[in-house]
Amino acid sequence: MEKNDYIFGIRAILEAIESGKTIDKVLIRRDLGGELAKELLDKVREYDIVVQRVPLERLNRITMKNHQGAIAQLSPVGYHRLDNIIPQLYEDGKIPFALVLDGVTDARNFGAIARSADCAGVDFIVVPERGSASVTSDAVKASAGALFYVPVCRERDTLTAVKKLKENGYLVVGASEKGAQSYIDADYTVPVAIVMGSEDTGISPEVLRQCDRLAAIPILGNIGSLNVSVAAGVILYEAVRQRLASGFSKQ
Amino acid sequence: MEKNDYIFGIRAILEAIESGKTIDKVLIRRDLGGELAKELLDKVREYDIVVQRVPLERLNRITMKNHQGAIAQLSPVGYHRLDNIIPQLYEDGKIPFALVLDGVTDARNFGAIARSADCAGVDFIVVPERGSASVTSDAVKASAGALFYVPVCRERDTLTAVKKLKENGYLVVGASEKGAQSYIDADYTVPVAIVMGSEDTGISPEVLRQCDRLAAIPILGNIGSLNVSVAAGVILYEAVRQRLASGFSKQ
Repeated sequence: MEKNDYIFGIRAILEAIESGKTIDKVLIRRDLGGELAKELLDKVREYDIVVQRVPLERLNRITMKNHQGAIAQLSPVGYHRLDNIIPQLYEDGKIPFALVLDGVTDARNFGAIARSADCAGVDFIVVPERGSASVTSDAVKASAGALFYVPVCRERDTLTAVKKLKENGYLVVGASEKGAQSYIDADYTVPVAIVMGSEDTGISPEVLRQCDRLAAIPILGNIGSLNVSVAAGVILYEAVRQRLASGFSKQ
Repeated sequence: MEKNDYIFGIRAILEAIESGKTIDKVLIRRDLGGELAKELLDKVREYDIVVQRVPLERLNRITMKNHQGAIAQLSPVGYHRLDNIIPQLYEDGKIPFALVLDGVTDARNFGAIARSADCAGVDFIVVPERGSASVTSDAVKASAGALFYVPVCRERDTLTAVKKLKENGYLVVGASEKGAQSYIDADYTVPVAIVMGSEDTGISPEVLRQCDRLAAIPILGNIGSLNVSVAAGVILYEAVRQRLASGFSKQ
């Protein structure tokens, strides 16, 4: 994370919001009060920006400058809205191809996955507001710039997002070692959303229950699972293989 | 004490123990708790391994990396010889599956590739003596312990190793964006060696000339190539797909 990804001080953050900068999240000192703090909280609510109440030490670790108890983390790219992107892709005549990341926290994994998503022709990525890597400069670097191309929708939570995708006709395929069927048996030539879980615990149980199919990657060796970015690449490219074989064009 | 004599991180230590490595002792942070720590303590008791509870500072003096409160002291992983492993696999009745890394230098990429190789049932990995990541503790950690299972042959240079594989009946498939044919068109059900190039420059020209086939992964987006560990995973799992479809058993 580079220094210029942050804005310090309440007034500066208010200015940044009003000037239309894309803000990843705002960190506010746990016990911050006063008129100005109230103004900031109203503003972030109005603009639907993620807020985290944190101890003073967390803020001081980011900067020892006079942050007045508030630091905003800027996003190098803007987030998209699922409510806009879903109808838009259908209007464009696409058979949409989505990737949902349910709790991938490591910036380097997130970046590598975004790079693979771009290469595989994924139309958009969905991440939840909390418990997920976000579009930081580290993630952009790890993505080799792919995060400037692939739209990222940041939704309140994965469960709601997955339900919305299902309502809109997407087949939801969850990558899981618990899947009885192989990932190659799923059909990726329909509107499809592939869900990848977190590095440690995989897809959360409530999201897993929403999946139309669970897709397992066969493991022939001693280590129980692939790295999440490799697993994502393997499944995304099975989808590419099926789509190209079905006559989808390369662009 | 060489860096290679230490293993950091609970998962990597668990794998080291289970794979039969000789462990001198395990240093564990005095106040370390949690499920994973309990698993480690049970395992070291089961294998009658000496454990020392130490202050965090003691661990940090050994490494400032993310050791998760546990460091194991052990001997480095031994390298195998191509001259031994080639006849041995044929004697075992295997249709061998090899992975050659022509200048992968990043330890994390090397580890992730080794993890994928283990999962895909690769029989051995070949790396050159110079200009390559080697089996360090960083690589072992990134491999989630896979480097304890997959034999690594460290040969003088990649060119000689590839020629030797060809002389012994291996089809040599080079991953290259310059390949006119898709990676899915190659036949991986024969004795096969997949060659992956370096992160920056790909496979070196003299090794590229030795490849029986060049295999390209189709790129549908804006970023020109996949991360090398993702690309390796995609090709290895195409081989798995073909081998399972041809009736190879899972073990």
